[in-house]
Amino acid sequence: MTTYTAPTKDMQFVLHDTLGIAQQDVPGYADLDRDFTGAILEAAGQLASEVLHPLNEVGDREGCTLENGVVRTPTGFKEAFDQVREGGWTALDADEAYGGQGLPYIMGTAVGEIMSAANMAFNMYQGLTHGAYSAIHVHGTDAQKEKWLPKMVSCEWTGTMNLTEPHAGTDLGMMRTKADPQPDGSYKITGQKIFISAGDHDMSENVVHLVLAKIKDGPEGIKGVSLFIVPKFLVDDDGNVGARNGVSVGKIEEKMGIHGNSTCVMNYDEATGYLLGQEHKGMRAMFTMMNEARLGVGLQGYAQAEVAYQNALAYALDRLQGRDVTGVKNPDGPADPLIVHPDIRRNLMDQKSFVEGARAFTFWGATMIDRAHRAEDKDADGLISLLTPVIKGFLTDKGYEMASNAQQVYGGHGYIEEWGMSQFVRDARIAMIYEGANGVQALDLVGRKLAQDGGKHVMAFFEMVKSFCKEHAEDEAMAGFVGPLKEASKDLQAAGMYFMQEGMKNPNAALSGSYDFMHMMGHVCLGLMWSKMAKAAMDGLKEEGADRDFLEAKIATGRYYMQRQLPATKMHLGRIQTGPEVIMGLDATAF
Amino acid sequence: MTTYTAPTKDMQFVLHDTLGIAQQDVPGYADLDRDFTGAILEAAGQLASEVLHPLNEVGDREGCTLENGVVRTPTGFKEAFDQVREGGWTALDADEAYGGQGLPYIMGTAVGEIMSAANMAFNMYQGLTHGAYSAIHVHGTDAQKEKWLPKMVSCEWTGTMNLTEPHAGTDLGMMRTKADPQPDGSYKITGQKIFISAGDHDMSENVVHLVLAKIKDGPEGIKGVSLFIVPKFLVDDDGNVGARNGVSVGKIEEKMGIHGNSTCVMNYDEATGYLLGQEHKGMRAMFTMMNEARLGVGLQGYAQAEVAYQNALAYALDRLQGRDVTGVKNPDGPADPLIVHPDIRRNLMDQKSFVEGARAFTFWGATMIDRAHRAEDKDADGLISLLTPVIKGFLTDKGYEMASNAQQVYGGHGYIEEWGMSQFVRDARIAMIYEGANGVQALDLVGRKLAQDGGKHVMAFFEMVKSFCKEHAEDEAMAGFVGPLKEASKDLQAAGMYFMQEGMKNPNAALSGSYDFMHMMGHVCLGLMWSKMAKAAMDGLKEEGADRDFLEAKIATGRYYMQRQLPATKMHLGRIQTGPEVIMGLDATAF
Repeated sequence: MTTYTAPTKDMQFVLHDTLGIAQQDVPGYADLDRDFTGAILEAAGQLASEVLHPLNEVGDREGCTLENGVVRTPTGFKEAFDQVREGGWTALDADEAYGGQGLPYIMGTAVGEIMSAANMAFNMYQGLTHGAYSAIHVHGTDAQKEKWLPKMVSCEWTGTMNLTEPHAGTDLGMMRTKADPQPDGSYKITGQKIFISAGDHDMSENVVHLVLAKIKDGPEGIKGVSLFIVPKFLVDDDGNVGARNGVSVGKIEEKMGIHGNSTCVMNYDEATGYLLGQEHKGMRAMFTMMNEARLGVGLQGYAQAEVAYQNALAYALDRLQGRDVTGVKNPDGPADPLIVHPDIRRNLMDQKSFVEGARAFTFWGATMIDRAHRAEDKDADGLISLLTPVIKGFLTDKGYEMASNAQQVYGGHGYIEEWGMSQFVRDARIAMIYEGANGVQALDLVGRKLAQDGGKHVMAFFEMVKSFCKEHAEDEAMAGFVGPLKEASKDLQAAGMYFMQEGMKNPNAALSGSYDFMHMMGHVCLGLMWSKMAKAAMDGLKEEGADRDFLEAKIATGRYYMQRQLPATKMHLGRIQTGPEVIMGLDATAF
Repeated sequence: MTTYTAPTKDMQFVLHDTLGIAQQDVPGYADLDRDFTGAILEAAGQLASEVLHPLNEVGDREGCTLENGVVRTPTGFKEAFDQVREGGWTALDADEAYGGQGLPYIMGTAVGEIMSAANMAFNMYQGLTHGAYSAIHVHGTDAQKEKWLPKMVSCEWTGTMNLTEPHAGTDLGMMRTKADPQPDGSYKITGQKIFISAGDHDMSENVVHLVLAKIKDGPEGIKGVSLFIVPKFLVDDDGNVGARNGVSVGKIEEKMGIHGNSTCVMNYDEATGYLLGQEHKGMRAMFTMMNEARLGVGLQGYAQAEVAYQNALAYALDRLQGRDVTGVKNPDGPADPLIVHPDIRRNLMDQKSFVEGARAFTFWGATMIDRAHRAEDKDADGLISLLTPVIKGFLTDKGYEMASNAQQVYGGHGYIEEWGMSQFVRDARIAMIYEGANGVQALDLVGRKLAQDGGKHVMAFFEMVKSFCKEHAEDEAMAGFVGPLKEASKDLQAAGMYFMQEGMKNPNAALSGSYDFMHMMGHVCLGLMWSKMAKAAMDGLKEEGADRDFLEAKIATGRYYMQRQLPATKMHLGRIQTGPEVIMGLDATAF
């Protein structure tokens, strides 16, 4: 009963008016003019609305089933996957050398939001393939790339990431999966992996698993972990799919959501695997996938909030209930629409201001990745490395909260599965957990990224905010943005200072505040993005033929964020400054 | 795979050390000494752990089914319901004149938490019966009470509340269900009601529906609504169950959670009904049920957080993952337990400090109800009427958030249904919606309750906080509690002042801030409760043979709340003071 329309106008505003991508000095960006990106987004939007979204509820209801060792996807998924493949959507930003279209990552990101909002569980099949593609692309030998990538780019073969074991989640050093070297240079992989998204299914000819395992007699712990390519079906040197490998599905997990994606227990029983990258350097190779995957998960978080918001808004405009206290708005009807009520609006504005801010943040992050990869910009690489845990952690926490807020607009109907709002919430919930639970993101941010390269990147981040504020300090129209942004940035700096001073004495002083810091930083990033968007909208309003309604709404939504959301940094700073004792003081047995 | 143990020690601490119930001047309270309440709580706890909780997951998995017009409850529910009935648990605080045990409401509340935490969906069958019992008890004629109450007290017959219709949720004035007066004084009820919890099932001999309907040719809108008793089976004057009435189940809704409770579409087709209370005064009678129900829903909110916390804590103590950065804690194991990690602790402390504060608040609220009903204390009645929307709205919002936080502790396993954490979250979600969505609670609080009786009750509330602070102003040990409480209370007063000044000019100035105000007030209430508990714990520590570990943990948990949660009032105040323009400024078409 839900619908989805790609927010192409807003995306174009971010890409062109806010980020000015076509003018950026990044190889490949010059082609991305407004017409070109518009055509791509419109086409993706049509596929999403007409094909993918109608399957969202089907996927949730039917789920995946394991029949005689083979996973069956929900009705219609296979046909839709064919359409996605045939449209070339899987190859958008892949290397042209392997059949990709070679577009920048920013385009993959924008299209990714559309596909993910329309049908998160479905889109994961190609999303994980893309991650596996990237790992092979970066770490594979030429022969490996020739062999595996073309079919993965086209999604004739899909990919997976195999990290977790029953007893080893975040702590991968404890993993038990073994790799036994063979005379021909291959390995025999044996062990069990769990939570393998898209682990098996009936939509592709082969599944290429990337599996972390320990080579026999290698170093202990995380230092002995290597990465392997382990296909479901073996592939000969001519690329022909041959015999079944020793890989099987143990079971499909029953999950809270994303039922349309097959989350599998994978059993490896002397399966043939090929080392990817160097021996014992598996974590490095895996991180190529993980960083990309983390951005993709942050995107999932706000994408679910976007589709939930669209439906909540439609309901709020349509559902008649009660009267506007300041005067009847719908005199001919039995009641006024929900949207007249201040608290419904408060809720909708929370959602709208989050989603639009998150989109700008994520798209901006994608341009940093393009800068890093296409222009070899080390600063951009450092900045996005710093902010990846923020994109993942903050956007998924808030995305889930906003999906739940959207569900709330429906009242009782929000709780009934038939109306579809529950699914958005249930699907969004996983984004806070997988690819590193959000607590782990906060730990990565505070325990690792802040101090990386001598704190260079976090200083660059503050410099970026400061220079924006300085640039617009005299612009009176921007005062409502620059003021709060400055204030919030000061809070964040104070928290960083606190970590530096106290964390030396006691690392728990920093780690106790890590979650609050991640949220603070997320707010400052969205505050910066809203300030950039407001400036772009103000400039746009000066032009002839401007879309005044759109631009004025943009500024009003930004003001809402700056006034009502951004100041949360003060609360987080206060929490951080209470110190670790109040958190760590209680003995574990006293809980 | 989850477990539940009733927190009887903590309950006893709240009942006796904090609230001193046995010393309170309320009829019936003198009997409630520590041994007596302890025996009841232990017995309820045993039933909850051994019988009700093991059925929680069964209820979720199987759900209710409609077979040939009859609802079948999940395996084991009927036998468990018999045990609950036989144990006299349904009659705990019911009137002795109708077979109840006549205990105060506070005992029903404490036992209610236990049953609801163990199995929320199951406990609703008796919870709704209790609400219907109360409405008949207050508004029924002697003959009606004689006829219906004894079997409802014993839950041989269960009860329901029928308010919502497909097009009329909060706005009950639009309802279409009609009541046609008959010559014998009864009515023929015709219409459709939706979202009827426990609407039908196979665990009782009869179901007594309380149905809102409009008497033919009565006043328009909400003023023409009356309340009727409409049994599933007609009952003759001797109390014998006879012919089937014109009531049937249209369907069972597929919901996000509480699958074990049958949420029905109920069709009334010239069903025989009996007026309860006065003609056209149905809302008044229904409010008797609704206020009680709202307290019960607030309780559900934190009860789900309690059971989720218990399991998250057990997992955090058991699951080995990573090492304590300040030094290995489990040298003989492959890793340290999760609880050594600061962010896991932050999460657990959030949960623990919320649940214990919420319990004290709810129990305190129950004593206000007892004062109002048993001691005819009008001030207590006013105070609990003011705070009912806070108990409902704040405790369910936070309860859901904390259940979700508990799920997060499990990492990937939290998302897998088999581990049981997902169910707590899905079940808890409804509490924010039913019995008046939380936005409606905020509206009730700010739009109605604040100004009730000339603002007398909110002034009494502030006076209560102030006098506590004054009483302990010189107590240095209490400074860490009194200081933050004073501060938070000042924020709340400032918000109230803002509403008074600005709300006169523009009602939206108050309504735009209603949700933030509800949360602020919830924080101040929990801050007060934590201050009371801390004082009680400090006093307790002076006694010989004190349970030092428990009391010291209590104080530490309270400090956590005061330092890390309570200051959220500042953020809410800031939001309120941004005014209505930032929320209401955007035209509805510009979203």
